[in-house]
Amino acid sequence: MDVTRDNFRQTLPLVKQAIKEASFIAIDGEFTGLSNGSFNTTAYDSPPQRYLKLHSNTHNFLLIQFGMCAFRWSDESQKYKAEAFNFYIFPLKSTVSGVPDRIFSCQSSSLDFLTKQGFDFNKAFKNGIPYLRPNEEATVRATLEEKQTFRENAFRSPVKRKNNSNNSSPVSTDSPTSAADQKAKEFVETAKQKVQKFLEDANQEEELILESCNSYFRKLLFESLPLAFPDQVLVESRTNEHTKLRHIVVVKGASSNIKKARQELTKAREEAELEDAIGFSKVISCLSESGKLVVGHNMFLDVIYTIQQFVHPLPNDLEEFKSLVSCVFPKVLDTKLMGSMLPFKDQLQSTALGDMHNRLKLPPFNPVGIETPGKYNIGTNDEHNHLHEAAYDAFITGSSFLSMVNFLSSFQSTSNPIISFSSLCNLVSPYVNKIFLMRSHDIPYLNISGTDLTPSRDHVFHVQFPASWRSNDIRQLFAPVGQINISWIDETHCLVGLYNKVQAKNVKNLVKSGTVEPGLYCIQSYDDYQAEPQLWLPTSQRNMVWRSNSTSNSVVNTPTRAKPALSFTSGLGQTSITPPTADVSTPLYRKRQGSFANRETTNGSLKDCDENDVEPLLKRQKSQENCTEDLPETHVKQDEAEVGEVSNVAASSGLFVVPDQWE
Amino acid sequence: MDVTRDNFRQTLPLVKQAIKEASFIAIDGEFTGLSNGSFNTTAYDSPPQRYLKLHSNTHNFLLIQFGMCAFRWSDESQKYKAEAFNFYIFPLKSTVSGVPDRIFSCQSSSLDFLTKQGFDFNKAFKNGIPYLRPNEEATVRATLEEKQTFRENAFRSPVKRKNNSNNSSPVSTDSPTSAADQKAKEFVETAKQKVQKFLEDANQEEELILESCNSYFRKLLFESLPLAFPDQVLVESRTNEHTKLRHIVVVKGASSNIKKARQELTKAREEAELEDAIGFSKVISCLSESGKLVVGHNMFLDVIYTIQQFVHPLPNDLEEFKSLVSCVFPKVLDTKLMGSMLPFKDQLQSTALGDMHNRLKLPPFNPVGIETPGKYNIGTNDEHNHLHEAAYDAFITGSSFLSMVNFLSSFQSTSNPIISFSSLCNLVSPYVNKIFLMRSHDIPYLNISGTDLTPSRDHVFHVQFPASWRSNDIRQLFAPVGQINISWIDETHCLVGLYNKVQAKNVKNLVKSGTVEPGLYCIQSYDDYQAEPQLWLPTSQRNMVWRSNSTSNSVVNTPTRAKPALSFTSGLGQTSITPPTADVSTPLYRKRQGSFANRETTNGSLKDCDENDVEPLLKRQKSQENCTEDLPETHVKQDEAEVGEVSNVAASSGLFVVPDQWE
Repeated sequence: MDVTRDNFRQTLPLVKQAIKEASFIAIDGEFTGLSNGSFNTTAYDSPPQRYLKLHSNTHNFLLIQFGMCAFRWSDESQKYKAEAFNFYIFPLKSTVSGVPDRIFSCQSSSLDFLTKQGFDFNKAFKNGIPYLRPNEEATVRATLEEKQTFRENAFRSPVKRKNNSNNSSPVSTDSPTSAADQKAKEFVETAKQKVQKFLEDANQEEELILESCNSYFRKLLFESLPLAFPDQVLVESRTNEHTKLRHIVVVKGASSNIKKARQELTKAREEAELEDAIGFSKVISCLSESGKLVVGHNMFLDVIYTIQQFVHPLPNDLEEFKSLVSCVFPKVLDTKLMGSMLPFKDQLQSTALGDMHNRLKLPPFNPVGIETPGKYNIGTNDEHNHLHEAAYDAFITGSSFLSMVNFLSSFQSTSNPIISFSSLCNLVSPYVNKIFLMRSHDIPYLNISGTDLTPSRDHVFHVQFPASWRSNDIRQLFAPVGQINISWIDETHCLVGLYNKVQAKNVKNLVKSGTVEPGLYCIQSYDDYQAEPQLWLPTSQRNMVWRSNSTSNSVVNTPTRAKPALSFTSGLGQTSITPPTADVSTPLYRKRQGSFANRETTNGSLKDCDENDVEPLLKRQKSQENCTEDLPETHVKQDEAEVGEVSNVAASSGLFVVPDQWE
Repeated sequence: MDVTRDNFRQTLPLVKQAIKEASFIAIDGEFTGLSNGSFNTTAYDSPPQRYLKLHSNTHNFLLIQFGMCAFRWSDESQKYKAEAFNFYIFPLKSTVSGVPDRIFSCQSSSLDFLTKQGFDFNKAFKNGIPYLRPNEEATVRATLEEKQTFRENAFRSPVKRKNNSNNSSPVSTDSPTSAADQKAKEFVETAKQKVQKFLEDANQEEELILESCNSYFRKLLFESLPLAFPDQVLVESRTNEHTKLRHIVVVKGASSNIKKARQELTKAREEAELEDAIGFSKVISCLSESGKLVVGHNMFLDVIYTIQQFVHPLPNDLEEFKSLVSCVFPKVLDTKLMGSMLPFKDQLQSTALGDMHNRLKLPPFNPVGIETPGKYNIGTNDEHNHLHEAAYDAFITGSSFLSMVNFLSSFQSTSNPIISFSSLCNLVSPYVNKIFLMRSHDIPYLNISGTDLTPSRDHVFHVQFPASWRSNDIRQLFAPVGQINISWIDETHCLVGLYNKVQAKNVKNLVKSGTVEPGLYCIQSYDDYQAEPQLWLPTSQRNMVWRSNSTSNSVVNTPTRAKPALSFTSGLGQTSITPPTADVSTPLYRKRQGSFANRETTNGSLKDCDENDVEPLLKRQKSQENCTEDLPETHVKQDEAEVGEVSNVAASSGLFVVPDQWE
């Protein structure tokens, strides 16, 4: 079901119940942007690098739709029952003091993608559910309590005007007489007459709602009316729910009881408004507290966005981030990682969510009986229409997960049908708390609850070269050591991985033996490159982030000095440095910076992008492709081969092993 | 009429015609945000300060709707004829190489405001018209031309594969045999068989559209098929208009003529796509070239957004900005400024657009006969529904302007009815190229084509004080010199203007005579404050912008050293410095930073905000107000009095004089 601001209060108990009863919960998010272009991720990022790059790239985009699908085993029907909630999110400025008027970023390609999927932005902006991080909630709550205490004290010992002038009108008279003051006086007089009439007329209602006016005038009324009608009226300020205009309301009588009762009412209203402002954060908090297994597909970005938006600003340190993830989602499982491993890897042509879900319905897989949420009936033509609706994606993620678990269970001696989730927990334990790392050559996952893998990268080199160079120039340079994989950092830097690792020792001879004009490039070992904290940042971004980590500023923008002792260098030409801009420009024909193969995070659907689902991304990158395709001989800076190579290299790295349990 | 991507091509000639025939053109914009909270504008900003603050505050928000209403005198009907165009704007990523994938910001209060006005975001994101600044256009065009030249050359002398291996398949074989390579080979073989069949079957169409596949596979086909079927086929890459998927298309025959014809087609398509990508910028360019008078209401932000989005990134220097404005809009006129001057000032209760427009229909004004655009028929109930639709606002801006011109003409000896606009040009010349400055105490306008006013500010002081201080503390401090006007800079700084300017000389005695505990604050003359380039920035922003202007870094974050020789100081306590964040937080109860009175730019409608139209802003700032109103005795940091004072001070400054012509 769609959950918006309109039905959130009523739906929250259902959501909590669903979480409480769930065997596991699948999630998915839709975002207003995926990369601000701060960094190109590479195939050889270390896990801390990858995390920092994604963190920087996604800063300030909005998670605008959160899908949650709770799967519960039903003894009755001997099936899993899925309940899906599609939350629209929008940081509405609340009426409560201290709630921020948030500013978020949008990437035009992401909005275009969501629009094409039929995303309803009007619904999101009009009825999206707001949210507060816990620390924001605490601040707002403290402010509110201070205000309430102040009001209660004021009620017990009414304050008198400090200024003890005899002038009962708060309109100042010590300024030169002005038309504005005159206008204010007339305004107050008119209001007084209205109140007088209201008090004299016994048939009148209890309340007189005065015409909406500006804050200065409201302040005047607030001060003048109680003075003019002492102990006869109570003056309040109130917002018309419909017009959202603010009015002064005059209430007959001013007895302590009436005042107290009204104060209680106000307090209750304020508390309710605060609860509304906390909004969607309650769902995340409930999810955390449940400790249930949370399943996502290619979920790194989902986790990043969820935490930064609803929980806590992201730390720069990966270990701190991991702790945070462990707090928010004590158990996570990534179906894209699961699908990339044996025994699934051999069966699945693609681990893109839609493809994978379809494949997992066919033999040798045995789909699990699921009572689907009515809206998402499987097998209908309507199915495709829901793809990339967050709740639907969560639903098919959970379904795919169940199908994979079912398949694993068939390897067990007791080939029982799935009875309950808990009985199968040991089957999935090898996958728990490992988050898929896209397009990483040799580190398939981020290990949330342990140390990350550190494969040898002795066969990987950092290369600096003139901006005019393209893939072919680099391939030509490395020709003597065989085929290479290129991962672009920016216009003038890349990482090169040798297919034939044994050739690594020969790289130092390249300068001598190579046919490439010397004096243009600089080759450096991967370890040296990693040892210089600034070096792995794109040229344009160096000295902008993590400045405190920089041990030396001399590296910045002075490429000729960036040659560590151990590097094999042949000197460097002048490199051009492009200043960073807010626009993520599709780079020029010969100067493309971020090829699609380098983009870890791609649009909407395409955070889940692999060799079989590059196509949709390309819809948005046609411009780049035009070059490649219309001009097949022009080898542009685009590591096309990588598309085919990733799984190959990963497979040969021996990391995707079948866990003991089912081998 | 609404203009979107769907009808832009067809509508552009009408727009151009309307501009060409217009007597003058009214404009209005709607934005996704108004202030990122970088700076609080003050009542005593100098024009360069005000410009830089607005420029910083509005950075990266999107002008999402541009309203244009062309007014043309018709001899036939003896009326003005108004044609209104409501352009939806969205920076769609184009298929053309080099068009940026833009990132823009949204402020939740602004989206909420637009949503409440019925703004259709789905329409904007789906069908908004894209744009390119002229320099972006030049870059994209150069890229395109380079590509076209390359293709033509390639056509004249077909390139051979540089790699002279005998292997006709471009799939590499020098890597370890891999499943991925195998898959690729199979893919190419299958495609070859399809093409073979297509060539053999005489009944087949001219073209064979292969299944959509990823870019790597498309590249393989692009290289393999022409080699496999030399001189028999032409291979192209094409995007399906509907699905947006990219396909390889195989065309029968490969004669020079066919190739050339197809190249011409491709070229024409690319040119058309580029024209589409330039999009709305053409309208602005046409408007500029026309040199026609452009009328706006409180148009500073409209001008800023229009220039930065469609013309050129904003310079930091005000004089450069003025030159840019003169190029883009050679003649501008601001109806809010006009309405703030005599003879209108005395007649108008409010210069808010809606109020002003309504007032100008009544005596002593004489509305001008206008053939209104059908959609905006005056006097219908529907009228209010259009308020804040950009084209409607442009329309009523132009109508109000005509009514004011008509009124001015009645002062002339020859009281002819308005016959043509040109005959009345001299009447409005005093207002031309002056843009209204909101909430400025003594500088009513920015003079685009001349030097700005520099009123004496000897009676204005810069005050630094503890974060716990509120309005009352400052008023108390200045009590010996009479009533003051407070303009907040941040938590710990404000500007204070004396009502009684003669008292300025006594301010230096405050420390001695004042009742306020000494050792807490620092008072500095306005001139001294201005002389320190960093001082007028909010504490949290110092050292962040215009660093090059800073003559000394010692001021930064070291408030105790920020005491120039001439200041009257009594020492300073520790001040707390809040780091800037992306969220524009409604400040805390006792620590509010930006009161509504200080906000120059307010939401949507509220860039046009004055003493009579504060209300709508307050809808979004209720939280702040709650304090003021529920607790009238708590003088929070909010210069409430300013609301009434601005016009007063401005009036007494003698700057709003009646131009000679009609006095």
